[in-house]
Amino acid sequence: MLNWEDIFATRSSRMRASEIRELLKLLDRPDIISFAGGIPDPALFPSDAFRNAYAEIFVGDQAGAALQYSVSEGFLPLRQWLVGEMATIGIACTTDNIFITSGSQQALDYLGKLFLSPGDTALVGWPTYLGALQAFNAYEPNYDQLTLSGNRTPDSYQAAAEKAGGAVKFAYLSADFANPTGETVDRAARERLLALGDELNIAVIEDAAYQSLRYDGEAVPPILALEIAQKGSIEATRTLYCGSFSKTLAPGLRVGFVVGAAPVIRKLVLMKQAADLHSSTINQMVVAHVATRHFPAQIAKIRAAYGARRDAMLAALASYMPADTSWTRPQGGMFVWVTLPEGMDGAELLARSVETEKVAFVPGQAFFADRSNANTLRLSFSCANEQMIDEGIKRLGRLIAGSVKALAA
Amino acid sequence: MLNWEDIFATRSSRMRASEIRELLKLLDRPDIISFAGGIPDPALFPSDAFRNAYAEIFVGDQAGAALQYSVSEGFLPLRQWLVGEMATIGIACTTDNIFITSGSQQALDYLGKLFLSPGDTALVGWPTYLGALQAFNAYEPNYDQLTLSGNRTPDSYQAAAEKAGGAVKFAYLSADFANPTGETVDRAARERLLALGDELNIAVIEDAAYQSLRYDGEAVPPILALEIAQKGSIEATRTLYCGSFSKTLAPGLRVGFVVGAAPVIRKLVLMKQAADLHSSTINQMVVAHVATRHFPAQIAKIRAAYGARRDAMLAALASYMPADTSWTRPQGGMFVWVTLPEGMDGAELLARSVETEKVAFVPGQAFFADRSNANTLRLSFSCANEQMIDEGIKRLGRLIAGSVKALAA
Repeated sequence: MLNWEDIFATRSSRMRASEIRELLKLLDRPDIISFAGGIPDPALFPSDAFRNAYAEIFVGDQAGAALQYSVSEGFLPLRQWLVGEMATIGIACTTDNIFITSGSQQALDYLGKLFLSPGDTALVGWPTYLGALQAFNAYEPNYDQLTLSGNRTPDSYQAAAEKAGGAVKFAYLSADFANPTGETVDRAARERLLALGDELNIAVIEDAAYQSLRYDGEAVPPILALEIAQKGSIEATRTLYCGSFSKTLAPGLRVGFVVGAAPVIRKLVLMKQAADLHSSTINQMVVAHVATRHFPAQIAKIRAAYGARRDAMLAALASYMPADTSWTRPQGGMFVWVTLPEGMDGAELLARSVETEKVAFVPGQAFFADRSNANTLRLSFSCANEQMIDEGIKRLGRLIAGSVKALAA
Repeated sequence: MLNWEDIFATRSSRMRASEIRELLKLLDRPDIISFAGGIPDPALFPSDAFRNAYAEIFVGDQAGAALQYSVSEGFLPLRQWLVGEMATIGIACTTDNIFITSGSQQALDYLGKLFLSPGDTALVGWPTYLGALQAFNAYEPNYDQLTLSGNRTPDSYQAAAEKAGGAVKFAYLSADFANPTGETVDRAARERLLALGDELNIAVIEDAAYQSLRYDGEAVPPILALEIAQKGSIEATRTLYCGSFSKTLAPGLRVGFVVGAAPVIRKLVLMKQAADLHSSTINQMVVAHVATRHFPAQIAKIRAAYGARRDAMLAALASYMPADTSWTRPQGGMFVWVTLPEGMDGAELLARSVETEKVAFVPGQAFFADRSNANTLRLSFSCANEQMIDEGIKRLGRLIAGSVKALAA
């Protein structure tokens, strides 16, 4: 895409999102209460289970295989475990429907590469996961706003995509406790999405990174489960379910997966063979080892811990936020999404918040494909304890209340 | 790139190479003497060192960091170790010049993604590494034959690229003990390549996967080292040195690296952030641990073992091959390249060889961008002991001698 000299002359527009990330890295200072990073709490990693799993691989005759090249589709026992796990959430499949990736971020990159040509349209939420936009941006798509309220017709999406010089290729969304809003798409809206997928004849990318992290309320079936129920078999579906062990076990091993119709899985396997051969053999074996023995207990542990932090954050927001702000009430995940009064700017608030209140968060603007909605912010409750959450939201509420008054004056 | 229905209707032309790989997988049978796989011998992996490294990570307070997300450019102590290692081969650089990838295959994919638009031209050897063609194919380039004998002018490359609808974007080659030929590019030809790079103003991709595996003869400086010597600083160079731990330590951790001018490295880091965030944190820590303590001893061990196998293969070829075949005499690496009499077909020979002689290899055709030169084959000596090498080459020589007679009759 680039000539040699371009590298030295141009700056990619993609750098903006990464600049925000760089800014946020600076905020990992001990004197700052951070609600910024959307990362799991390392204190909750099943470290003992991982230690034992790595140790056991070097006992007996597995070590050679663990350190050797392996197949692009992924470690078979891990895919077999996933077949059983998927069955518990309504996704009937075989190992031919499962492909192991280096984290679910890689799944998004590969699906972008598979479907998008420059000028094609991807339907995404407004806001949506920043990392998805970064992954898709490499393939130069246009974005259109995915709305499931029924006020956009399939024709209107198609016409807009044609006008933009391409075709609609897929709809992407995180249906459970989405990053950044924490919101969950209800069953009726999931079914409308499937109908839209059928009418447009496009893929549906279901980002399930947070799906296991439900703290209360009733689980909604995954979009892929609903489609299998409708159509009778995973082979008749168009939904690609992107899963991750990063939020449940640990992200540092880089193991995620895609579940979908076998012909798409085969394309992704070929793509991976050309792109990085396969994900780390030993890490896939270790994840299989830990998941097989400890997954339900680990899920129970993190649900309890993160659920308590979610409760603390919602209680603190109710106590300390001024009247004209609103926020989501997530049933799971790691995030609460705050809407400030019109005219306030999250990025500007962040600069002041770090300076005077020592509290960090992510300005919401980063999560909109068109960089709109400056008056929003994302708060993560995953890495702060209840006391820090109360103190941090108290300070943030004070700062916002002062800003609201200044705006009114 | 694809519509939903295309996935079910079309077959990618890229499947051919992977079909060969699938065929070769079937050949990993205990009754077959295989010279096919270009993979390291697992018996030579430093398994004890790896076991200790994983165990030590879980002692003390590193475990949380090892299992957590980390930076896209790679684990700093590993990059620091590489700075020292590069200095020993004439590559003066800092950690800003080093980027960790998930194997050097990922480096090839990212460099293809960075430089190639559909219709652009990549200059590659004839033959060249099949995996490089697979990585670049995703970006739909044309290939032109990189010759360093001086009988192609820069203008002729440029004119051919324009005729093909794009521009020349880079030259790719493995300069030491190349896969598949085992041959090494001499210093004068490396300097001609650098001059060609300057004249065309393109990147030079130096695949150094086998560079540490020299069994005799004198080391030739890496292309990047020669360019730094010419231009005074790595920041003035156009060579991107792609290194790997897969052939020296073990491939299953998926850790490789790129060394080059900092502006290119920064582009690759942004690309990785969007594509898979980072390579496995714990595996990078483990490779740093093992490399720091055991790299020279490990290199000495594998040089001795593979060197003896190379000797055995060259001796067996001299003993058993009919007069009208020829082969390379590699000073390192894992491969010998055999040229059969004109008119013979390596793929057809493979089918008969597996059937009657129980010997496997890779037909050479797979390594030519235009699928020419059917009368060639690649033999790997990395995974067979000296006795198996003698027996396998004896059988293969018998089969080829018979075929030569049949061809003459």
